[in-house]
Amino acid sequence: MTMAADPTPLAQAMIRCRSVTPADDGALDVVQRALEPLGFACTRLVFGPDDYRVDNLFARRGTAGPHFCYAGHTDVVPPGNVAAWTDDPFSGVVRDGTLFGRGACDMKGGIAAFIAGLADYLAAHPDHPGSISLLITGDEEARSVDGTAKVLEWMEANGQIPDMALVGEPTSRAVLGDTIKIGRRGSLNAFITVTGKQGHSAYPAKADNPIHRLVAALGPLLAAPLDNGSEFFPPTTLQVTGFDVGNTATNVIPAVAKAMLNIRFNDHHTSAALTERLHAALRAAGCSYELIAECSGESFLTRPGPFVDALSRAIERSTGVAPALDTGGGTSDARFIARYCPVAEFGAVGTSLHQVNENASVEELRRLAGSYRAILEEVFG
Amino acid sequence: MTMAADPTPLAQAMIRCRSVTPADDGALDVVQRALEPLGFACTRLVFGPDDYRVDNLFARRGTAGPHFCYAGHTDVVPPGNVAAWTDDPFSGVVRDGTLFGRGACDMKGGIAAFIAGLADYLAAHPDHPGSISLLITGDEEARSVDGTAKVLEWMEANGQIPDMALVGEPTSRAVLGDTIKIGRRGSLNAFITVTGKQGHSAYPAKADNPIHRLVAALGPLLAAPLDNGSEFFPPTTLQVTGFDVGNTATNVIPAVAKAMLNIRFNDHHTSAALTERLHAALRAAGCSYELIAECSGESFLTRPGPFVDALSRAIERSTGVAPALDTGGGTSDARFIARYCPVAEFGAVGTSLHQVNENASVEELRRLAGSYRAILEEVFG
Repeated sequence: MTMAADPTPLAQAMIRCRSVTPADDGALDVVQRALEPLGFACTRLVFGPDDYRVDNLFARRGTAGPHFCYAGHTDVVPPGNVAAWTDDPFSGVVRDGTLFGRGACDMKGGIAAFIAGLADYLAAHPDHPGSISLLITGDEEARSVDGTAKVLEWMEANGQIPDMALVGEPTSRAVLGDTIKIGRRGSLNAFITVTGKQGHSAYPAKADNPIHRLVAALGPLLAAPLDNGSEFFPPTTLQVTGFDVGNTATNVIPAVAKAMLNIRFNDHHTSAALTERLHAALRAAGCSYELIAECSGESFLTRPGPFVDALSRAIERSTGVAPALDTGGGTSDARFIARYCPVAEFGAVGTSLHQVNENASVEELRRLAGSYRAILEEVFG
Repeated sequence: MTMAADPTPLAQAMIRCRSVTPADDGALDVVQRALEPLGFACTRLVFGPDDYRVDNLFARRGTAGPHFCYAGHTDVVPPGNVAAWTDDPFSGVVRDGTLFGRGACDMKGGIAAFIAGLADYLAAHPDHPGSISLLITGDEEARSVDGTAKVLEWMEANGQIPDMALVGEPTSRAVLGDTIKIGRRGSLNAFITVTGKQGHSAYPAKADNPIHRLVAALGPLLAAPLDNGSEFFPPTTLQVTGFDVGNTATNVIPAVAKAMLNIRFNDHHTSAALTERLHAALRAAGCSYELIAECSGESFLTRPGPFVDALSRAIERSTGVAPALDTGGGTSDARFIARYCPVAEFGAVGTSLHQVNENASVEELRRLAGSYRAILEEVFG
């Protein structure tokens, strides 16, 4: 097992910034002050409308290839019921070997661990081949509009697209090292409005019941799974999350029925093909309808290959655990990076993320730093 | 064609009472004053809670069998937008041979026509066999709780159940005499609440989507007609009139989904059997649910026989039109009477009922009075 320098003081310094998304409160300054002494050129990139300004940091050391990028975020979700916390959520207190505070796990602790492992690696390999960058955003937990996606556009325009990227989200399930995420499902929301013809329930021949049409359209979509999963993905799921009419009169056939759907889809599908499938189901049921489809992320997959193999080797060597290649869970900023280069995600055990008394084991953060150092060693040979 | 005495003055006297349901405003007094000189013993029957008192009239002439009962109501629906009426809805004005006013058609005009025909009949047949009664309620247009149903209970308790009954609703479609109603469909409302298990739309295996279960339960109910109609009835119709969830979060599988159904059913069904069918569909879809079923009236049918034959003969003789035997339309108080004796419905053309400028042709009311006289002649002939 590789143990690196203690990331805890840096994690505490970040936790003490109240960077509830999209606020920054100095969190990126903490990161930048840690990176500049290590030889990183730092660029701050502010995006977003006047009422939703987002600060981002791009830091790079060297310009040679291969270019490895670590991606993360310093914004955190709100603490929720502060009275339910044992400590101030922004105090970063350590008790009995555990660091408490909003972001300890997701993912200020992870960023601190990477920088600690990075410092160790650079001390041992000051003249390593290739180059290393960090893409740290303040807009991951909410809109995800003016963060990683915009920084990547800037990186592309400035010749800074990496050859591979690692997102430091807390991917480990039970023990550190057990899971690498190599893809994520896509997510599509659909908002359907079916318009019929209002009438009296005693004379349905003179009306056109939009509820009946919507049930007829949804029935076949729900009757069978959209697929049986793929090599690295579970089956696609379709959930009707809303169905509303708003009629209270028992003798009235209403004019309009609305439904809301969420589809989490694997690499068998694209949002465009799924949207067309919804159109086809609505047409087949004879619906007069409006369909608004919003895709918050296509599915993506970084197939096993040299990059994923290097991650696996490094993680097994540093933790003693052979990581499983996983594609479960919700979306992350990896979906944006996947458009540009191979990307995977690896980080701490995420049991307490978004919860009251969010925490991270100080010892686990040190071991995570060791894994990140090992990853850099494998990546740069 | 038989022409009886002019019912118009009596209809006008009733229309001038503002008996918007359940108010009476003297309307039953007008009827009672017309019947007493004809030898009717009148009983007023007041039912209902303190805040919804309903006046009713039971009038009978003679005690011998067979006992023929005419049933009607003096309550009317509200006038609606009074400004849209050409005349005061309660003025009962006659212009160019047409009587205008709320209730002219439904059914103060009808009651006046029956009493005019009755007077003619009694003048010609003062010693007719059998006996004649009138059941006139003030609670038909809204709750229908403290009207005909309660009067019938009183009649049963007092040995006054007739051998046959005619409800004077405006059943004629295009011309007077073209339609006798010999039955009505039943109406069942069902209120369904399906309870699932709330969860995240990304992890449906950990949740139980009540919308999916409700769609699965409703689908088969909607896929095929419940029957193909019967000898005297159109097919039963099932309409889902409500489907509501109230969830606005796209990533949440809601806990509860509610639906509302209205079934208009023919003589193939009872409300109990239909309710059991709904239970079976919900069980088959694995629903954890609550079902509240409310039947506002079972279907009923007075099969063609001596009474219906007598009506048909009298109507054809008096109008020159052979009436069709029909079971269409909504509910009427005949559904209550059907529990006690054969009942049919016959009255004026109902084109303007419940509308602005409700009206009846003075000449048609006279012809209707002639038909009612002819019916009495056939029944007692």
